[in-house]
Amino acid sequence: MSKPSLPEGVRDFSPEQVFKRNYLFDTIKDVFLKYGFLPIETPSMEKLSTLTGKYGEEGDRLLFKILNNGDFLAKANKEALIDMNSGKLVSSIADRGLRYDLTVPFARYVVMHQNDIAFPFKRFQIQPVWRADRAQRGRYREFYQCDVDVIGSESLMCEAELVRIYDEVFHKLGLNVVIKVNNRKILEGIAESVGAKAKFTDMTIAIDKLDKVGEEGVEKELLGRGFDAASVVKIMSVLGTKSLTELKDYLKNSEIGQKGIRELEDFHSYLDSSPLSNVVAFDITLARGLNYYTGCIFEVQSKDATMGSIGGGGRYDDLTGVFGMKGVSGVGVSLGAERIFDIMEELGKFPKAVKGQAELIFLAFDAESHKFAFTVVTALRKAGIRADIYPEAAKMQKQMTYANRRGFAYAAIIGENERLQGKIALKNMESGEQLLLSVDELIQKFKHYK
Amino acid sequence: MSKPSLPEGVRDFSPEQVFKRNYLFDTIKDVFLKYGFLPIETPSMEKLSTLTGKYGEEGDRLLFKILNNGDFLAKANKEALIDMNSGKLVSSIADRGLRYDLTVPFARYVVMHQNDIAFPFKRFQIQPVWRADRAQRGRYREFYQCDVDVIGSESLMCEAELVRIYDEVFHKLGLNVVIKVNNRKILEGIAESVGAKAKFTDMTIAIDKLDKVGEEGVEKELLGRGFDAASVVKIMSVLGTKSLTELKDYLKNSEIGQKGIRELEDFHSYLDSSPLSNVVAFDITLARGLNYYTGCIFEVQSKDATMGSIGGGGRYDDLTGVFGMKGVSGVGVSLGAERIFDIMEELGKFPKAVKGQAELIFLAFDAESHKFAFTVVTALRKAGIRADIYPEAAKMQKQMTYANRRGFAYAAIIGENERLQGKIALKNMESGEQLLLSVDELIQKFKHYK
Repeated sequence: MSKPSLPEGVRDFSPEQVFKRNYLFDTIKDVFLKYGFLPIETPSMEKLSTLTGKYGEEGDRLLFKILNNGDFLAKANKEALIDMNSGKLVSSIADRGLRYDLTVPFARYVVMHQNDIAFPFKRFQIQPVWRADRAQRGRYREFYQCDVDVIGSESLMCEAELVRIYDEVFHKLGLNVVIKVNNRKILEGIAESVGAKAKFTDMTIAIDKLDKVGEEGVEKELLGRGFDAASVVKIMSVLGTKSLTELKDYLKNSEIGQKGIRELEDFHSYLDSSPLSNVVAFDITLARGLNYYTGCIFEVQSKDATMGSIGGGGRYDDLTGVFGMKGVSGVGVSLGAERIFDIMEELGKFPKAVKGQAELIFLAFDAESHKFAFTVVTALRKAGIRADIYPEAAKMQKQMTYANRRGFAYAAIIGENERLQGKIALKNMESGEQLLLSVDELIQKFKHYK
Repeated sequence: MSKPSLPEGVRDFSPEQVFKRNYLFDTIKDVFLKYGFLPIETPSMEKLSTLTGKYGEEGDRLLFKILNNGDFLAKANKEALIDMNSGKLVSSIADRGLRYDLTVPFARYVVMHQNDIAFPFKRFQIQPVWRADRAQRGRYREFYQCDVDVIGSESLMCEAELVRIYDEVFHKLGLNVVIKVNNRKILEGIAESVGAKAKFTDMTIAIDKLDKVGEEGVEKELLGRGFDAASVVKIMSVLGTKSLTELKDYLKNSEIGQKGIRELEDFHSYLDSSPLSNVVAFDITLARGLNYYTGCIFEVQSKDATMGSIGGGGRYDDLTGVFGMKGVSGVGVSLGAERIFDIMEELGKFPKAVKGQAELIFLAFDAESHKFAFTVVTALRKAGIRADIYPEAAKMQKQMTYANRRGFAYAAIIGENERLQGKIALKNMESGEQLLLSVDELIQKFKHYK
């Protein structure tokens, strides 16, 4: 057959990449666990009835659908077949789809396991998702998401805890970030203050574009979306507000706006009790696209790299309503693991020691010595030390080339001389320095490489 | 919408299950790394052209196929549509499928990345695979495989290393196993010795059934497959052979048979140089179904639980030939992670401490105290200690019930009294014992729970 290749938009990961990715995921996971969050995992495939209609029309289009097994045409929609209508045919030949995000499966999980869960439920989930998006640099069709949520509590302490998680994760990864904070109730208050409560969504869509189109652009957008000139002036002035105190006065007549301010104050009363490593900044222009956020919202931006947001989230009032379980409020954030990985690569933030590979390889140059080398490497492994061995007594040159190419820090060399003394010549591959050691001495030297 | 549910054959994993599964995978992974094996990961979806024809007709049927996105009918095979022939239609509307095992993707990986790989290449891979098999107890449509292979070396040391990995993994997991060993060349030698080289596959299929159908059954099967009575007697007598020495004599006229014996001797000269925790037993009736094995073959059986094999593998001469890269010999084994998990559950082999959950939860009973509790839990987390906190100052009864249900070992209780003294009442949830501690004392006490 011809040369094999991969489908568009998916990737192989080499050992070095796997080590780095695991370092990233493990760092995140350790912080989640430290804050009392628990892992769950959901299957890669869900019923299409669970997934469809949850991500908008665009999302439905980007779902990967799995063809029913066996004679799938037997139950196919005949009319759709005759019309050659792919869109109409799908649901009759595909019952399942691949996970598109971690939020909908989480909601389904909560509804299905509600009797086994002790609420408040603090869960995290680090798993791949699949989207049939146009593949391009930095955008893949299979990629990991990292989500962390608390559901079943309205306490603003949860928001503070999640921001502390952001702060600690990025600090541990060696990245400087700004964690932007706002509250959707404040945005609702602004809409209310210009008598345009019904146009709340229109307003947030316009505001959301400030970064991209500037003040004039937002003004134009607001006018285009039917706000009158006086309202636009008022909205634009409030977007200049930098402090909650200023805002309080502005929103004094909006109950919902006042509530939003109180929530942020409550959040800060928890958050500010101990110092943070990164900046947490109130940003009244932060809107977050998703309509289901109802309280505090967050977004994380790297200070060292030009890249979209590398994290975001917020409070929602109704996670599971779509599956018939009402009144489950929660708050959650996610980490953009793939983007964070790219930034860390770009800035060289992965520690050198992230390699999980052994530091030491045994090389032996005759059949006898090779068997002796195998007993020694077995002894080291019994002592818990990671060690490799070249599998045959090949020529020295060949083995040394291999050891160099693989990047081992040390080679334990055994020829006839060493074997007859029951010793090992340990060579530092960088400095070239060589020591003659007994097995016990070798074990002592490498015990810390466990 | 109605109550959500999962597709047949796939599972959610609760926090407790995730902790246990990770304990299992991490134990295996640590051993792999200790022996110098490196992780790779391949994508969930492969081109169907990569997958089809590699697993037999049955396998092709069990592949999950992904429907092409967009207007997939536009390129559909018109004839197949008119005939309503699902089998013929598939390849025109589905270009991709889900990974069915880890071997074919590994072969593809090696061919695609051959210039970046230093051979011999020792790789492991722990990832889910998908098969549209009939779901039943213990058999799932999404399940993990753990594969470990060395390719690019013919040294029998590799076989010894893999058996040592089996030995160490099962020892670490607390399971007693028998590791059965045979060599396909010996089976070929037996076929040769009765002048039935061409019937080698028929013979192995018959022998493979010994466990299930007994000696008489095998005799019948051999006769049915065209072996004459004299040959059957000869084959049955050799199956009673327990030692290599006996066998040597029997196979003295078969070159391939002699080679198989020498390979096993060479393998043992490596393996036996240090003691093992489990039994490694020569089993001449071990055949392994797959035709691509050409040398040593292995199978692992639990001694404590009735269960099929929980591991198996062997040497193959041509992993990548199907993708145009000839002459890549290797040896690999796999661990039946899902079955091992079930046995460990059944025998209670998961350590209690496998829970990655915090041992300690903070409970506070008024708003002030709750904020104080949050500063204390933040201090503990800064010291690297896993600790949880109930998110609001709810009634004591409610919080204690929650702490009990979640299974925390300790509760750090803060009411007005404690707060005014700047102290924490630490309650042992099992014994009921209570201590009044300062923040520093609390940190000292839990430092080891990192």
